[in-house]
This record gives sequence, structure tokens and C-alpha cells, in this order.
Amino acid sequence: MRFTYECCDCGTVYETDEVFYQCPSCAKENDGTSFPKGNVIVKLNKEDVEKLAKQDHVTMYDFFPYPVPDKDAYPVGGTPVAKPKRLASKYGLKNLVCKLDSALPSGSFKDRASQLIAAQALYHNQHKIALASTGNAGAAMSCAGAAYGLEIVLFVPATAPVNKLMQSVLYGATVVPVKGSYDDAFALSIAYTDEFGGINRNTAYNPMTIEGKKSVSIELFEQLGRKIPDVVYVPVGDGCIFAGVYKGFYDLKEAGLIEKVPKLVCAQSKQSNAISNAWKSGGFTNLPKATTRADSISVESPANGRMAVRYIKESNGWATEVDDGEILDAQFELAKEAGIFVEPAAACAWAALRSDSEMLREKFGEEVEVCCLLTGTGFKDMAVFEGKVSIPEAIDNSKEAVRKRFS
Amino acid sequence: MRFTYECCDCGTVYETDEVFYQCPSCAKENDGTSFPKGNVIVKLNKEDVEKLAKQDHVTMYDFFPYPVPDKDAYPVGGTPVAKPKRLASKYGLKNLVCKLDSALPSGSFKDRASQLIAAQALYHNQHKIALASTGNAGAAMSCAGAAYGLEIVLFVPATAPVNKLMQSVLYGATVVPVKGSYDDAFALSIAYTDEFGGINRNTAYNPMTIEGKKSVSIELFEQLGRKIPDVVYVPVGDGCIFAGVYKGFYDLKEAGLIEKVPKLVCAQSKQSNAISNAWKSGGFTNLPKATTRADSISVESPANGRMAVRYIKESNGWATEVDDGEILDAQFELAKEAGIFVEPAAACAWAALRSDSEMLREKFGEEVEVCCLLTGTGFKDMAVFEGKVSIPEAIDNSKEAVRKRFS
Repeated sequence: MRFTYECCDCGTVYETDEVFYQCPSCAKENDGTSFPKGNVIVKLNKEDVEKLAKQDHVTMYDFFPYPVPDKDAYPVGGTPVAKPKRLASKYGLKNLVCKLDSALPSGSFKDRASQLIAAQALYHNQHKIALASTGNAGAAMSCAGAAYGLEIVLFVPATAPVNKLMQSVLYGATVVPVKGSYDDAFALSIAYTDEFGGINRNTAYNPMTIEGKKSVSIELFEQLGRKIPDVVYVPVGDGCIFAGVYKGFYDLKEAGLIEKVPKLVCAQSKQSNAISNAWKSGGFTNLPKATTRADSISVESPANGRMAVRYIKESNGWATEVDDGEILDAQFELAKEAGIFVEPAAACAWAALRSDSEMLREKFGEEVEVCCLLTGTGFKDMAVFEGKVSIPEAIDNSKEAVRKRFS
Repeated sequence: MRFTYECCDCGTVYETDEVFYQCPSCAKENDGTSFPKGNVIVKLNKEDVEKLAKQDHVTMYDFFPYPVPDKDAYPVGGTPVAKPKRLASKYGLKNLVCKLDSALPSGSFKDRASQLIAAQALYHNQHKIALASTGNAGAAMSCAGAAYGLEIVLFVPATAPVNKLMQSVLYGATVVPVKGSYDDAFALSIAYTDEFGGINRNTAYNPMTIEGKKSVSIELFEQLGRKIPDVVYVPVGDGCIFAGVYKGFYDLKEAGLIEKVPKLVCAQSKQSNAISNAWKSGGFTNLPKATTRADSISVESPANGRMAVRYIKESNGWATEVDDGEILDAQFELAKEAGIFVEPAAACAWAALRSDSEMLREKFGEEVEVCCLLTGTGFKDMAVFEGKVSIPEAIDNSKEAVRKRFS
């Protein structure tokens, strides 16, 4: 099977039947001073894709470069599309939907990438996958590894919160804490696969992660009755999920199933806004320090930032920034007024959407169809609520005490 | 709309258009010395049910006594059916499936009951629902309340773990800790609805909880291609989920869609085996103390025990007991060899199934179709792993350290 890759930066096209990561000429320019270059885009065979337009129904698997074996062993996809009626009415957006990827097997959107990486490994007869992560990506890959019987070697910064790593340990991954940063863990994971072989699953390195992530858009298209929303809000850190969402819609357009990609909104924390900043300024400057509490989207030099900025523009989208207070408030609001419990990174998308709600109504009308992509469950980090939420005082065990409490 | 209820114990039939809880004559016999009496079974209109056999496809909503408004506001159902290939091969059960109800909105099976109770409240123009719970049921009802804008009043024993209550507080419920046991909280929640009105959602009290829970069986029937498994393993505490699973299959049989209810296996911890004990002994003796670490199924006097024992017999099923060590081991195995991370109560079903695997193969053959019902996510209680799982030592930030670690 031959695969075609196009460098997002220089446009060079590579064709190979081997595993391929980055554009070698662009990647060697990277010196850490600005957003990295050299990420490649997987190009599907145009003729194959066009055939899909004739099908009554498409699935993510129709658009995947690799066949996924034993799909039910690791059931990725089919996550609910919620219509949160109270929030829709509160913000005057009657066609609001939330895509609940928090319901995926390991509790985050990252299962979408891990499914295809597992398929890639199995296709190339590799039984070992290495990656760097501080949380969701590591857990998702470890979950897939457990389901398929693949060995997962996970490099993590030693300072990563224990609870976030516990999940990967439980799934049986070989967890290797590194006395260094995430970037150090990233570099060592590449050193590991260079020396010991196996597939490297790092996001913004292995282009198949974006191919896996694109599945959300294909699924959404079918779930909404073969239609796409007008606007989709995506929480953004390094820009890989954003690129995945774009690529899914792009492939649907290539197939002739939709006419254009919806407007994609890059939702960022003001305390970690490198991509938004680059979109506004036109430059690709690393930011000094990301301090957002939304750890899954806390990034200074976004590894897929260049591609994300390009896709904001190509979708006619924009970037919306919110501060950490708004993110926490949005997280509470989703729980309290929709019954949707997500992690802070996911809540960032909702915080951005609701802060844009008046503009959305004015610009596109009250019928505008808006989707909020919720990428991770709230259960993984209950510590975020400490000191902010408390359990009320106990009452005596008597009917009189109940009467007193409620009268 | 008229509803028909039949007392599980004396067989008296009640017809009413009001909310109805228990058989008044049997319930007044309850003195705390043995399993409670008086729970009623909702009987559907036979003619209506038989019409369903003509449909190409049925959903849980076809079998619900109440219409569910705004289903997408609180998307319950459609949980994955996983085929854990590694475990299937390890235990020689090629047709093994796991129903992952851990993926429901609040992270547990209890969302199924809460959806129908919310519908019941809305149908009767009630906007307040009270219940007693120490964990999942409270969180699920609070989640539904947030989605629909209903007031939830949740009575909990003051000793319940803070983390288990936090989720309900986040969903906006009025949480009322009671200086007493779960039974005390149960009694006070009834005192509350008697005095202040609203719907009472207590399991083994409001029969609609079982009607909601039955949805899992109807869903499974469609997901398996309009077939049912031969055997279904259900984790059992008070017997309500078990009764729900039975009722779903029973209604399918009433509709003529299946010929018989599958064999239902009551999976219990040896440290909380009241129902298993009653099934074996024929008596309904309360047990002195339930000490299992699987908190969701730790019960001394199972409130729906009589109905559960009846349904074990009527399904030609049986009870399998496992100890807490086996439950923890099963929890690890599901994570490590299937990528399925569930709470201890859910793992009890898997522990029972794998301990029966040889018998299943011998008695029913290797082709036997077995389903394991996994009722709750593992994320809600990470403390269970303390001291049992640890993160490895950190390595230095160098390629040399990686080489040393893996050579």
C-alpha cells in the first residue's frame, strides 16, 4: 500500500509504502525559536474518495489510510451528540450541539488517534509504540495497547501529576518518567524508536494521529443527518485536534459530500494562546510561558501550530480567547445546566462559544448551527474543584431535621 | 394514561393514573428482619407490546411507560458493545461481549433509571425529585436534573466519601448529608417527598427505576443483530439492576421478539452475598455485615432481593460469588488486557464470568454467547489503587539513560 504525504510548509510531496513522519528538509530547520516546521498532511487517493459520494452512508473507516482490525476490541466512535436545551435557550442558539468525546474508551478524544496508530502498527507488523505525553494521549494509546496486545512505551515528564499517569500504568503501559520537560520526553521518545524500533505516536510528528482525529468530523456529518454545522468550536493547545477536525471536513469535501468546510474556531486560554496570537499577528513566535490550569491545552511552542493557523484561515474561521476564570465557570455551567462533566481543556471550547454567542446570532442569525467539541471527561482531575465546591453540613437523622432544613 | 402494577410478592394488581410506589399491604409487613416486601412490577399493555414485533427496529422508548422528552438533552443509551479479543481467547469464550455502560453521561448504568424518572416527573408536572444514594444513583439523577432543569434533593449518609458526592454537587443537586446510615437517608427521603411533594426516585421503591434500567436489554438485542446472548452476567447489590435486565428481556419476549429470557447470572462479592445466599438457601435472611470494597454493590438487606431471586429462577440462571481479591484482580485484568477501566462493582461481573468460564464452555460449548454487563467507570474511585499500583522511578534526561533503561 502506497501513502502520499505533503509537507504543510514547503509543499513537497512524498510517496512511500513505509512509515513516514516529517518532511526532512523543513524539520531540520527547527531550532526551537519559533513554531516547528515539517509536519506533513496525508493525501488520500482522489478517485477512491470520490467513490464514497455514492454511498448512502459513510464511516470514518472509509476515509482511513489503514484498515482497522477488530474494531469492537477498542470501540472508538459513536459518541453522543447532545443538544443541551437549557444552554441553547440561555444563549439564544437554538441549533447548538455538543459532541461528547469524553465518552470514548479512555475518557478523551485522543482515542481517535490511538485507534489508527494501533492499526498502523499492526499493518506494518510492529508491536511496539512509543510516545511522549503528560496525560490523555498516553492514556488513550495505553488503552488501545491493552485492547490489541501492543507494547506501549510512554515517556512522561517526571513532574506530571501521578493521577494522570496512573491510568496508563493500569492499562499496562511501560511508563518512563523523565527528569525533564515534555519537550525532553518528546525527544527521548524519538531517540527510543530510532534505536529500538516500533512506531512513534507523537502528535505533530506521526501524521496518522491527525488522520485518526479526523474521524470526529465524518461521524458528526452522519449523526447530523448528512449535514455539517456552520461553526465548530475546538479547544486548542498544540493544534493537532484542530487539524484533525479540519482534515475530516476537508476529506468529506474532497469526496463531494459537502460543499465547504465549516468555520472552525480555535478556542484558547489567554494563558496559553500561541496559535491565536500567531493567527492574529501573522508571525510564529513562541510564547514565554503557558500558565493555564487547562493542562491538556497548555503549550508554549505549538508543535502543529503552523498547520492550525493555516486551517483557521482556510475554513474562514477565527480564534477566540478566554481566561482561566471563564474556563472554570464554563466547566461548572456545563455540569450544572447541561449535565455534561468535562475537563477544563474541553470547557475552554464552551467558554469561547458562549462568549461569542451574541456575535454568532448577529452575524449568522439565531438559526446558526454551532457545534462545541468536548474533548475529555472531568473525572480525571477532580482536584480542580478543591476549595471551590463543598459538601453542605450534615443534618440530624430525624424528620424534624428535614422539616427544619427545607422550611 | 393508566399504569398497571403487580405486586411481586402477593400478586395484587393495581391500576392508576397516579404515581405509584409499592404494594401497601405487603410493604406494611416490613419490619427490618428480612428482605423487604411490596415492590411492584410495571405491566405493559399486551396489545401495544405485541405490535412492536412488526417493527424492523425497536428502541427502549417503544417499551417505556412514559414518553421521554428532549432525548438528546440527556443522551442515555447507545453504549458500546466491546468484543475484548484478548480475554475471549484467554478464557476460550469466542463469543464474549462486554456492554460498556460506564460510557453513559454520569459514568454509570444508573443514568438509565434517571432518564425515565425525569420523564415521569415531567409527565406528572413535578419539578422536584428526591432520593437517597451513596454514589452512582445520586450522580445520575443529578445529571438528569441538570439536563432537564429539575430540582434534585439527594439524601446521603454523612459518612459517604466526599468524592462520590462532589459529582452531584457539581451537577447542582441539593445534597443533604444525614447523620445516619443509607437506610436512614432512604427513610428521610421518603419523609421529604411525603411532606414536600415531588417524585421519589429511590430504587426498590419507585418501580419506574426498573423500567428505565430494562433499556439495556432492549438495546443489546438490537446491537447484537436482533439476537440475545445465551448468558448475561450482572453485578448485584440490592437486585435492582438485575431486575431491570430481566424486565427488558421479559418485555421483548412479551412482544414476541425473542423466545426466552437469557440465563441471568447474579454476580456478587462473597463479602456481600445476600441475594446469592437467598437463592441457594430459599430463605430471605438479612446478612450481618457487608464488607466488600465494591461499594456500589455492598448491601446487607437487599431492597429488591425477593424480585431478584425470583428472576434468577425464572431466567434459569444462577448466582456466582467471588471474593474481593478476585474483584480487584478482574478490575486490573479488564484494564490491562482489554483497555476497559471500570469500578470494582462492575469488575465483580467479570470476576464471576471468568471464574465460570470452564463451566460455561463445558455446559454450553465454546460457541456460547456470553455478555458481561459493566455498570460503572473506574474514574470515580482512583483511591482503590493506592498502594497497589505505582509509577516507576524517573530516568535522567539523556539518550544514554534511555539506552540503559531498555538494554
